[in-house]
Amino acid sequence: MLSGACLIGQSGGPTAVINSSLAGAVITALKNPNITNVYGALHGIQGVLDETFIDFSLEDMNELELLKYTPSSALGSVRFFLDDFEKNSKVYEDILNVFKKYNIRYFFYIGGNDSMDSCMKINKYFKSVGYDCIVNGIPKTIDNDLCFTDHTPGYGSACKYIATTISEIYLDISAYKKGRVTIVEIMGRDAGWLTASSKIASINGCNPDLIYLPESSFCLDEFLDDVKNIYNEKKKVFVIVGEGIRDAKGDYILNYRNYNNNDTFGHLQLGGVASVLCEHVQNTLGFPVRAIELNLPQRCAAHLASNTDIEEAYMCGKTAIEVAVKNITGQMITIERENGSTKFGTVPLEEVAAKVKEMPAEFINAKGNHITDKYLEYVLPLIQGETKLRYENGLPRFARLKKILVSKK
Amino acid sequence: MLSGACLIGQSGGPTAVINSSLAGAVITALKNPNITNVYGALHGIQGVLDETFIDFSLEDMNELELLKYTPSSALGSVRFFLDDFEKNSKVYEDILNVFKKYNIRYFFYIGGNDSMDSCMKINKYFKSVGYDCIVNGIPKTIDNDLCFTDHTPGYGSACKYIATTISEIYLDISAYKKGRVTIVEIMGRDAGWLTASSKIASINGCNPDLIYLPESSFCLDEFLDDVKNIYNEKKKVFVIVGEGIRDAKGDYILNYRNYNNNDTFGHLQLGGVASVLCEHVQNTLGFPVRAIELNLPQRCAAHLASNTDIEEAYMCGKTAIEVAVKNITGQMITIERENGSTKFGTVPLEEVAAKVKEMPAEFINAKGNHITDKYLEYVLPLIQGETKLRYENGLPRFARLKKILVSKK
Repeated sequence: MLSGACLIGQSGGPTAVINSSLAGAVITALKNPNITNVYGALHGIQGVLDETFIDFSLEDMNELELLKYTPSSALGSVRFFLDDFEKNSKVYEDILNVFKKYNIRYFFYIGGNDSMDSCMKINKYFKSVGYDCIVNGIPKTIDNDLCFTDHTPGYGSACKYIATTISEIYLDISAYKKGRVTIVEIMGRDAGWLTASSKIASINGCNPDLIYLPESSFCLDEFLDDVKNIYNEKKKVFVIVGEGIRDAKGDYILNYRNYNNNDTFGHLQLGGVASVLCEHVQNTLGFPVRAIELNLPQRCAAHLASNTDIEEAYMCGKTAIEVAVKNITGQMITIERENGSTKFGTVPLEEVAAKVKEMPAEFINAKGNHITDKYLEYVLPLIQGETKLRYENGLPRFARLKKILVSKK
Repeated sequence: MLSGACLIGQSGGPTAVINSSLAGAVITALKNPNITNVYGALHGIQGVLDETFIDFSLEDMNELELLKYTPSSALGSVRFFLDDFEKNSKVYEDILNVFKKYNIRYFFYIGGNDSMDSCMKINKYFKSVGYDCIVNGIPKTIDNDLCFTDHTPGYGSACKYIATTISEIYLDISAYKKGRVTIVEIMGRDAGWLTASSKIASINGCNPDLIYLPESSFCLDEFLDDVKNIYNEKKKVFVIVGEGIRDAKGDYILNYRNYNNNDTFGHLQLGGVASVLCEHVQNTLGFPVRAIELNLPQRCAAHLASNTDIEEAYMCGKTAIEVAVKNITGQMITIERENGSTKFGTVPLEEVAAKVKEMPAEFINAKGNHITDKYLEYVLPLIQGETKLRYENGLPRFARLKKILVSKK
């Protein structure tokens, strides 16, 4: 069995439970006799190149446990694209030198598609130069778009936040007899996994009237027709849209603006498809409107995380260490579901890297404006259980790490 | 002591705890031998005029208890402006006729400034025509702008939601080494009570860089200077603005748009001062930006309500009934704080109606771009304790009322 230091990094967009995976990996690694040191790279690959490592053995175990309930990336994140080493080996050589200096023999990267791609490339490079190092990926993404895993850590908590918030907004906008057309915008540029979770509010009696996903082509006229019919009957309409909805030609609905919202460099400003649609409803139908973007809380609302998600994220981190010390490398940890029970497996990184899992068609209704009950069967187990986050002084008590830097070698 | 039916209504914008006040009033009234019936008017005064009353004695006590943890106005709300009866007595005569038909001798209205004004006018009218009826107001508003009460039910929960969400967003945007200028927009057209609560996140180590309230005049150039200095030092800036911030001339900053955002009819589109400021930061300073509107969840996020607020709201409802059966009328219930303990009192409706409580100047720093610690002393007790909301199937289990209508007489 390999003996040496273990290095863990986080990458890509934060989630409510990416730190729970970190806790699972760190706490498991600290107990393993073959792992001489447990380091965290600040800001992912960038921290590797900068040699900014923190020493987890100097942290309080209580604070490490609190990471399970702490949102965002405690180690800091990065968006760093690694070229193939055949094209540009310089950065790989730099990484290798650092790994050698600190005798890093175990490397774990927590992230989404791009991070799994980085992981795969580093693993391949180490093999090509004969450097003995276990490299495994730990999945995370609220987007739920990683292949070969039933679902991804981060998704269940985002769903629980969205479904709860949609329920509360539903009750709020139901208070007035004559209401508005309320359009809520949900994250997901290419896939509707997150937007679909608004459907969960139906089990609470708070079903949205219309739900539009990027997977179905969006027709403005049909949308306005649907809104008109519902408004005339109920005097209020509750619409959910994915930020990346597109028309039949593949153009983003976000571009259907009446005003010019390009920035000074001519780039289209991000966000706001709900506002764009509100504008069309108001101008064409004359109904009162309100646009709501759920925005960042979708990925960082740890106070409403799913305990199932927290525990699964933890187990993904733990499993990554457990398989690593069995000499299993080049893998991403997966979550498998069978007959209602969950187990953790592995899939080779090259299988999963840079691939995208799409919503099954059976989760979307024929008209492309709502979600089916089949989806509820899939998603409900993922939002079960509430976080054990403690409150102090009325606010959540998140982990406070000392982040003591390892002296540079 | 008066014997007859009791009627309760809700009015104005919903909050996370307005139903807790309803529960307090209903459960207390149901136990009182002098109160023959306990009715709820659907959609406030409109429900009185339409005679759409529900009979609370037909509801399950368990569901009535769950109202404590259920957001929005369970009875439905209304925005209904009552003229003085000296000017227009028709609507008052209609109300009186309905009250006589159902022998309503106790009337309670849960709402903000405008609702207290309606309450006062109805009470005056009843007195002027010699109709024996107790009329009391129960305060609610997330805006905290009612006079003669230390704070208002609904405010503490909104603060707890804002402070928690701001903490989570702070951690999220701290993940990247080089970040953006993130501008969060908070409700409050005229008063900064809600915006100020973002400061609470400082006790969690998540202090925003800049906080702007409608109370201080906003200077775009100074703002851009502040943002530039902070960004150059930290590579990210976290700004909180109240939606109603204005410049020295009193013009809304919302109007400082670079593009023409009038709709086809020439009306200014509502919302989005954070977006307007982001646009200026991007165009003038060239920094990456993100605008976030906290929007409706500020007033309906019952899942994050303050238990102190829930219990105080309940007590306000309960106290309204208790003083009523002692023949005390024409009052609004107040919350008083002395030496850390809370008690409930009353104030004549004419004192409080249509008045607005402003933020004390000592809560705002000299430069007008942050909040003082003095404010923390005031607000921290209001956010203590967590809701006892139960979850079912992974989602909050809100009250489900049967809402059986009373047959029209």
